[in-house]
Amino acid sequence: MYTFTPAFEAPTGSPIRELFKYLGQPGMISFAGGYPASDLFDRDGLDAAAARASQQTTLCLQYGPTDGLPVLKEELAKLMTRRGTPCTAPELLVTTGSQQGFDLLLRVLVGAGDVVLVEQPAYPATLQALKLQQADVVTVPVDQDGLDVNALAALLEAGTLKRPPKLLYTVPTFANPTGATLSYARRIALLELATRHRFLIVEDDPYGDLRFAGAALPSLLALSAEVPGSRDWVVHFSSLSKIVAPGLRVGWTVAHAEILRRCIVAKQTVDLCSSPWTQVIAAEYLASGALEVHLPKIVAAYAVKCTTLCDALDTHLKDDIAVHRPAGGMFVWGRLAGGYDASAYLKTCIGQNVMFVPGVAFYKDNVDLASLRLSFAAPGVSDIEAGVLRMKQALERFAAV
Amino acid sequence: MYTFTPAFEAPTGSPIRELFKYLGQPGMISFAGGYPASDLFDRDGLDAAAARASQQTTLCLQYGPTDGLPVLKEELAKLMTRRGTPCTAPELLVTTGSQQGFDLLLRVLVGAGDVVLVEQPAYPATLQALKLQQADVVTVPVDQDGLDVNALAALLEAGTLKRPPKLLYTVPTFANPTGATLSYARRIALLELATRHRFLIVEDDPYGDLRFAGAALPSLLALSAEVPGSRDWVVHFSSLSKIVAPGLRVGWTVAHAEILRRCIVAKQTVDLCSSPWTQVIAAEYLASGALEVHLPKIVAAYAVKCTTLCDALDTHLKDDIAVHRPAGGMFVWGRLAGGYDASAYLKTCIGQNVMFVPGVAFYKDNVDLASLRLSFAAPGVSDIEAGVLRMKQALERFAAV
Repeated sequence: MYTFTPAFEAPTGSPIRELFKYLGQPGMISFAGGYPASDLFDRDGLDAAAARASQQTTLCLQYGPTDGLPVLKEELAKLMTRRGTPCTAPELLVTTGSQQGFDLLLRVLVGAGDVVLVEQPAYPATLQALKLQQADVVTVPVDQDGLDVNALAALLEAGTLKRPPKLLYTVPTFANPTGATLSYARRIALLELATRHRFLIVEDDPYGDLRFAGAALPSLLALSAEVPGSRDWVVHFSSLSKIVAPGLRVGWTVAHAEILRRCIVAKQTVDLCSSPWTQVIAAEYLASGALEVHLPKIVAAYAVKCTTLCDALDTHLKDDIAVHRPAGGMFVWGRLAGGYDASAYLKTCIGQNVMFVPGVAFYKDNVDLASLRLSFAAPGVSDIEAGVLRMKQALERFAAV
Repeated sequence: MYTFTPAFEAPTGSPIRELFKYLGQPGMISFAGGYPASDLFDRDGLDAAAARASQQTTLCLQYGPTDGLPVLKEELAKLMTRRGTPCTAPELLVTTGSQQGFDLLLRVLVGAGDVVLVEQPAYPATLQALKLQQADVVTVPVDQDGLDVNALAALLEAGTLKRPPKLLYTVPTFANPTGATLSYARRIALLELATRHRFLIVEDDPYGDLRFAGAALPSLLALSAEVPGSRDWVVHFSSLSKIVAPGLRVGWTVAHAEILRRCIVAKQTVDLCSSPWTQVIAAEYLASGALEVHLPKIVAAYAVKCTTLCDALDTHLKDDIAVHRPAGGMFVWGRLAGGYDASAYLKTCIGQNVMFVPGVAFYKDNVDLASLRLSFAAPGVSDIEAGVLRMKQALERFAAV
């Protein structure tokens, strides 16, 4: 009989995925998912793009270049330029979602025991990917202005890290899970720190285009033009998953040429290429200009949903759950008052047919047990209102125990 | 300025990919690629499948389950059963080509320094993937009946391996690069060895359905029913890349439940899921029965191409290049007579506008410099004949130097 002998103590699976089983519960209202709203996909625009892709049979059906189809790379470079972060097609690597880009980067750059800095709370798949690569993860706290750059500077100067850090992972705009956006001053300070201490900033930017309030801030990659020598130290990830559709599995990496070259060599080995078919569809979609027409509709809908959620929380749970209103993205981060544990509260909520993700999923250490993440992207407006009412009822039950 | 500090000495890229630059040379006839013939894709069948997929917008556009869409897993299980290797949907993991399946397996199972056995000559991406995972690769020779199982038995009993091997990688049917097929007796012997010595057999089977001569042999996974206790020791990889189209990027893994579970956890981290959109297209294509109608056309065309290549080599280069006619697949393996180096000969061939892959690309050690791989899949019949004539002219020039 076969007995599995693992390469090392591997990750045990995403704690969020553990919650998926409750999604099938009849009548469940979920604030738990990180999925974009299915009913906001640009079906007509994507149908038209798919029809044009079908005319390019060989391009869709044959193997493609490992770094991505040139036609898509050109469109992504134009998209980056429209976003205020100019880059060229050769600076781009197309991946199966930006998550693959991060995994490839870790594989070529981070060995077992290498020190990696991560903002905390953080996207759980990031923590899992670092565990899979056996990195020594050191966390840096986040507040409502994003990564605490002063705390990072203190950490770097304290000399307590086992090795010089190879990279720092951050979602500077509408972070998952906190919804926070790194301030301009902190962006500049972070670029200076990276350049001085010679670590890569991994800027993960899937949500940047989903801004519904306030003025846009330049990405770290764009701002690197203001900090001499810093551009080499920024690796920028982005994705069509949240602004077009995850099913395309189109993400991309912009990085220093030598990093990109090594990631491409690794990708040859990992999967040869991401699906050329969906790459052609994505290229046709972007070239058609449909994104610029449709994206404002998604953003407007998310604005309404976010306001609905935050207003309902204010109305019904003002003294019980403290939240910070984000200016974009998909997530609201909250804290339970009264010293309650969000994981225990979740159990009562599931009994009331409403769910969220307890904050513990986003921590490696120093867990804030009272924290929780609510996503407003997928549920409809009336479900959001009903869901908050159920959370209120659940809290009454929970507090009464 | 940024200086790259790699995690370890990483692979340098596929030696075959280095040849790609010559593909653009005007008038080049290439026996080098491992690509299926673009003009044999079932365009109508796939167009129809894509049109049906487009009706299932949310399934195509949203994130899918990490292990693959249930509808595709059901169709792949049926395909496996039609092939004589019955399995159920829960035993399957859908990956971005079978190459990703192998990479995931290595990541969860093989640590730095773990011993991995590989048939040699072998598919280069396998050697690269093992290098990326820092495995200790030990090669086992291959002859015209496939892996030399006696040599493997001797190696296992000699006690010279640094650690007990974790797995053995083989393409038992129409191997890349040799075209060889493992005999029935050797299949049974290999299953017995794996069970006794407790190593996994990684059976990579992308070409098994491309048989144009002789009677089919059961896969190792199917034959495991004949060798008590052996099924747990077989990990089976297959793919739609060579029988439908690579652009779908649909491969799958069948393995022991614990192995599969760990691979799925790793895939959550690596890319969340392979493209649901192309998974729906693949499922629709398989469900339509189009594969059973179209595949015989591909096989018949490859039969003609293979015969054309082998006949032309017999006619023009009989005393110069010894080849073994395969019974299926995409590759003919040859050896240059006269003690010549195939890499040097390739240079002269490229000057004559014809190319192949020198055998050195497929070896880790004990390189047979005279060997070479010719693929008959992609070029047309008249190009195959013209290509062999050019090889003959090149050999005359080459031998004259």
